[in-house]
Amino acid sequence: MTSRSLLATLAILCTIATAAPALAAGPASLKSAPTMQQVLDASKPSDWRPLNPNDTLYMDLPEGRVVIELDPAYAPLHAQNIRTLAHQHYWDGLAILRVQDGFVTQWGDPAAEEDHPAQPPRPLGKAKATLAPEFERAITPDLPFTKLPDGDVYAPEVGFSNGFPVGRDPKSGKTWLVHCYGAVGAGRGNTADSGPGTELYAVIGQAPRQLDRNIAVIGRVVKGMQYLADRPRGNGPMGFYKNPAHQTKILRVRLASDLPPSERMHLEVLRTDTPTFKALVESRRNRADAWYLYKVGKIDVCNVPLPVREAPSAGTKHH
Amino acid sequence: MTSRSLLATLAILCTIATAAPALAAGPASLKSAPTMQQVLDASKPSDWRPLNPNDTLYMDLPEGRVVIELDPAYAPLHAQNIRTLAHQHYWDGLAILRVQDGFVTQWGDPAAEEDHPAQPPRPLGKAKATLAPEFERAITPDLPFTKLPDGDVYAPEVGFSNGFPVGRDPKSGKTWLVHCYGAVGAGRGNTADSGPGTELYAVIGQAPRQLDRNIAVIGRVVKGMQYLADRPRGNGPMGFYKNPAHQTKILRVRLASDLPPSERMHLEVLRTDTPTFKALVESRRNRADAWYLYKVGKIDVCNVPLPVREAPSAGTKHH
Repeated sequence: MTSRSLLATLAILCTIATAAPALAAGPASLKSAPTMQQVLDASKPSDWRPLNPNDTLYMDLPEGRVVIELDPAYAPLHAQNIRTLAHQHYWDGLAILRVQDGFVTQWGDPAAEEDHPAQPPRPLGKAKATLAPEFERAITPDLPFTKLPDGDVYAPEVGFSNGFPVGRDPKSGKTWLVHCYGAVGAGRGNTADSGPGTELYAVIGQAPRQLDRNIAVIGRVVKGMQYLADRPRGNGPMGFYKNPAHQTKILRVRLASDLPPSERMHLEVLRTDTPTFKALVESRRNRADAWYLYKVGKIDVCNVPLPVREAPSAGTKHH
Repeated sequence: MTSRSLLATLAILCTIATAAPALAAGPASLKSAPTMQQVLDASKPSDWRPLNPNDTLYMDLPEGRVVIELDPAYAPLHAQNIRTLAHQHYWDGLAILRVQDGFVTQWGDPAAEEDHPAQPPRPLGKAKATLAPEFERAITPDLPFTKLPDGDVYAPEVGFSNGFPVGRDPKSGKTWLVHCYGAVGAGRGNTADSGPGTELYAVIGQAPRQLDRNIAVIGRVVKGMQYLADRPRGNGPMGFYKNPAHQTKILRVRLASDLPPSERMHLEVLRTDTPTFKALVESRRNRADAWYLYKVGKIDVCNVPLPVREAPSAGTKHH
């Protein structure tokens, strides 16, 4: 038995730190291809972008903080409504209502889910109760798109736009955010306009791509995903908790721009429109790590890591 | 806000129980297509097969039981070694060593993972310390295969064989078990023969299909997946627990056939070589539920549910 080696090189972030050789031009030069860690080590400051505080939510749970990046390019109405709700401290003291294994963790107002709640649902204040659907949007020239080369079961094209995984249909001229692990969406009822962003869910299992174009994805979890994924599963239908005492209270949700600068985190995400990102994708299509005996040379859109880091010179207290 | 309706129809097992109409012949008749629940409600006893006790592992954790079905058609040497290990009570008192968010939960002997363990690794007894790789096998006429129609990013063909998701390459004549949510594999070191089944892992996130053909998948979790997926993530590299006190002790692992019949569970899995299974796949390619406004008409091999139930007439104590 080789100690520490079983599956040891299967990590998302591998730790081999030898000098990065030239990128592979193709299968012939695979032996000199860098690992993802080598690609990241060789990245430049310009390969990263800071999270925009106006698009960044901090959701504080008893166990830790979940950081969500909103995507106003794909869901502008939802982003604005969610900002308004956060500004009003709408979610403070509300709860995680549902954890369905292999599917989603969902949070919101328990009273809104009950037929005869003990107290009325929390008022929405200046936020809207319904929003026009934002399940897809038009492809426009200003929207960045880094296409993946390996195709997709569900969409004619897949790739990345501003750091988010997306699908595209050149025929209809539409594009949409796809449901990968960590995607955050706005729960809705049976009508298209019934999800105003008050009740949100995050994907905690295999990408439920059947939801694509059926519901508004509003962003993704960039940090703290484990606090949504490791929760006890709900024991009622669809993972709802039968006993409200099993729900987890949300301590608070804040928009970063509503906090003083000294209380904001300084996170950066890897840009997806750079040669560095293309090298990262290549490092995952053909793994250079010694552990991999067979290199498949393909990748699914939901298997491409989207790295996040603390800004190197932040010098600020982190949570 | 419509109570209970947000994302309410996204459940794996939907509960609509109207009479099942005829199967959809194509997009034109989608409105009369049955839901998955309707397909299951209309299933016959012959659509199900009981788990073979000689291929069924019970892993008892403090929180509950995980049931794993071995697949001796694809990993016969591993199945036999794992039976031997279970027969010797090899895993009793060993531990869950690693939980990496979005990837795997892994269990085995803590001493085998340490450079200077306080006590020597547990002896393997009659089990083998190395096994020939079982990463893929030959396609043979006797091996059932229900092909999915929508293609795959990683494999030339995908489908199901005896209830397990598989990939196929008609050119090379090879087939293999694929890494979907709940797949169980035998961790190994950098050499192909170093994974004898002592240290096992289960997929708890997006299907890590890059592992396919690189490691032996030995079966899948058929029940109790939540007990592997909801665990606190490890705080060390690759999700290993830095502090051994955070590891979870395994109470016991037993092969069902090593237990007296009165202590065996009576579980059945839906056969994957029947018209009922094809109808189930179709019900997931085009969702009939009212919630779905857009029916994509496609499905990924790892999004097809593989239903498990207690045998209707079992009448035996269940755990």
